[in-house]
Amino acid sequence: MVDRTPPSTPTSVGIVGLGLIGGSLARRLVSRGVNVTAWNHRDHPYAQATADGIRCVPDLRDLAQDRPDVLVLCNPLRAMPEVLAALAPAIDRQATTLTDVGSVKGMVRSQVEAAGLGECYVGAHPMAGNELSGWRSADPALYDDALWAVTVRGDTEYPRFAAVARMITAGAGNRMIVLDDGTHDRAAALISHMPHVVATAMINELTDDPDRNIAAALAAGSWRDMTRVALTDPDRTRAMVEEDAANVEDLLRRMAGRLNAAADMLRDGDGTALTRFFAEGQPFRDYKMAQRAMPPDNAASGDSNRYAERELRIDPMHWQDDLIASARRGEHITAFAEDHAGHATIRVQLRSAVA
Amino acid sequence: MVDRTPPSTPTSVGIVGLGLIGGSLARRLVSRGVNVTAWNHRDHPYAQATADGIRCVPDLRDLAQDRPDVLVLCNPLRAMPEVLAALAPAIDRQATTLTDVGSVKGMVRSQVEAAGLGECYVGAHPMAGNELSGWRSADPALYDDALWAVTVRGDTEYPRFAAVARMITAGAGNRMIVLDDGTHDRAAALISHMPHVVATAMINELTDDPDRNIAAALAAGSWRDMTRVALTDPDRTRAMVEEDAANVEDLLRRMAGRLNAAADMLRDGDGTALTRFFAEGQPFRDYKMAQRAMPPDNAASGDSNRYAERELRIDPMHWQDDLIASARRGEHITAFAEDHAGHATIRVQLRSAVA
Repeated sequence: MVDRTPPSTPTSVGIVGLGLIGGSLARRLVSRGVNVTAWNHRDHPYAQATADGIRCVPDLRDLAQDRPDVLVLCNPLRAMPEVLAALAPAIDRQATTLTDVGSVKGMVRSQVEAAGLGECYVGAHPMAGNELSGWRSADPALYDDALWAVTVRGDTEYPRFAAVARMITAGAGNRMIVLDDGTHDRAAALISHMPHVVATAMINELTDDPDRNIAAALAAGSWRDMTRVALTDPDRTRAMVEEDAANVEDLLRRMAGRLNAAADMLRDGDGTALTRFFAEGQPFRDYKMAQRAMPPDNAASGDSNRYAERELRIDPMHWQDDLIASARRGEHITAFAEDHAGHATIRVQLRSAVA
Repeated sequence: MVDRTPPSTPTSVGIVGLGLIGGSLARRLVSRGVNVTAWNHRDHPYAQATADGIRCVPDLRDLAQDRPDVLVLCNPLRAMPEVLAALAPAIDRQATTLTDVGSVKGMVRSQVEAAGLGECYVGAHPMAGNELSGWRSADPALYDDALWAVTVRGDTEYPRFAAVARMITAGAGNRMIVLDDGTHDRAAALISHMPHVVATAMINELTDDPDRNIAAALAAGSWRDMTRVALTDPDRTRAMVEEDAANVEDLLRRMAGRLNAAADMLRDGDGTALTRFFAEGQPFRDYKMAQRAMPPDNAASGDSNRYAERELRIDPMHWQDDLIASARRGEHITAFAEDHAGHATIRVQLRSAVA
């Protein structure tokens, strides 16, 4: 069933964890008129958070007992079992939809299901963050023009999805795409987790080389850019990679195959194959060129009006498939509404696509 | 024999090719009081170059007949055979030392030897450049605080080496390290040529993925940084890789081995091996941290006084080995001089090293 609640109705939101991601989200939602209640495992952010208009509660269970429309798990992944165990007896499964901000979706859903909360869960992953951490770095602008990935299953109920979608679009003023967990985790492995391992392998190769100081002396922009992510906390990187192990494993083997194939072309002096190798990624180069040709977003307002938009009607029987197909076309959802006949619709931006 | 000419004597320099690299070098040397003569395959830069104090000649052979101390080949690599064929009959092999600015040294030396000019050649590769090209982009500041790799062989005569070294240190006000061709080309493959292929393989992997638009939507800083070099002209990248084919082939196979090994660790859930994998590059992380902790260079003056310096005496019998050992220790040569007893010395900066 499609929820008939006007999609712009302000949502009440509970936030677990006032770190960089949770704290920034809490401050952004409050600044845009959403009711926000928060809990943090230590209360040092509470004075400032309260002054910012965030209602802070002393116990995690208080957050659930408040019956927020959406409860957002912004705690570290390692604290998830403990947080879910505390929430499970207290949460009103009818009133509250559970979501999170983790960068791996399959593992979080397993943990939520293990806690008996699977029915009220919708996954979410905001593309927001920087190299900082903690409440002191929390800033509503972290979510300026952010895109969220929202993950659903065939049995996800539309009203639950709509509650999270409202928080993201009307609440935070952000864009979103809809995926299943597997597609999300494989895409994240491709554009982030696998590259982190590749960058690490590159600095290992240099460190292993007897002429490492000569190589380091000759290193310029290409080396600096390609190894930057290998300089971040290796324990955090390792944890991220292990959480998405199967996808990363597969992509590393695919990359190894591509590198060995290029090595064979060089050994054989196979110019035709090398030309093909260097031409293969041209659709991505063209996509980046098209992106660069667009005028910049109006980041300050969270509003990006440089893209053509259109309205799509959602079929209540297979809204999941319709929305995932929209993501595959490279569209970003900016709003949920109803057409004149009362049917649920989405407003999508037509972004450039990789041909 | 060690040359007794005072090493600070201004050099006369001939430049073949007034593109970005050659034009910037010509302008920098002239601005620092060096006599510069230049030839370009088309004469459109001549009016401005002449106004800048560069003597421009109509014929490539005029450049050789001028008997400059150093003649710098700044022409594209593909024009090398033709340029060398024109120079060979005109060059005074006693008076003039030939050098170049190419990013691959073994291949250039082969071409120079094929033209019968091997005895008067010393290789050079300035770490300078940007995404621009041509005389219009030429700028003396391109060489601010630049490091050059100078390549020699066991039979390179010291006076020839000294002429090139004087042009770089006293002339251009730059730093240098001394290598053999093979060490240079392998280090360049490690920090530039191989990474270009890896970045290309990554955009190929995305382009090949049916969910490429989803991956592109989720892409953030790590993906952007790691694929930036794959967006540059693929024909130029292919040519660069082919010029250093054997080294790139070897490094691609080594990288493929590292990626497959990491994939095995993920498949086996081998936490100990993964911890070791992510710790292996720690000496490079520490080196970058130490670099960042240094105050910035005084780039405008080309003078970097933030590093401790020391003077080393050069043994005239095995100066090549001494200088290559200095490069392996991570030292940069800033000046050539003589001590009170008249022995040739170098002044080196003690840079941070990869442990």
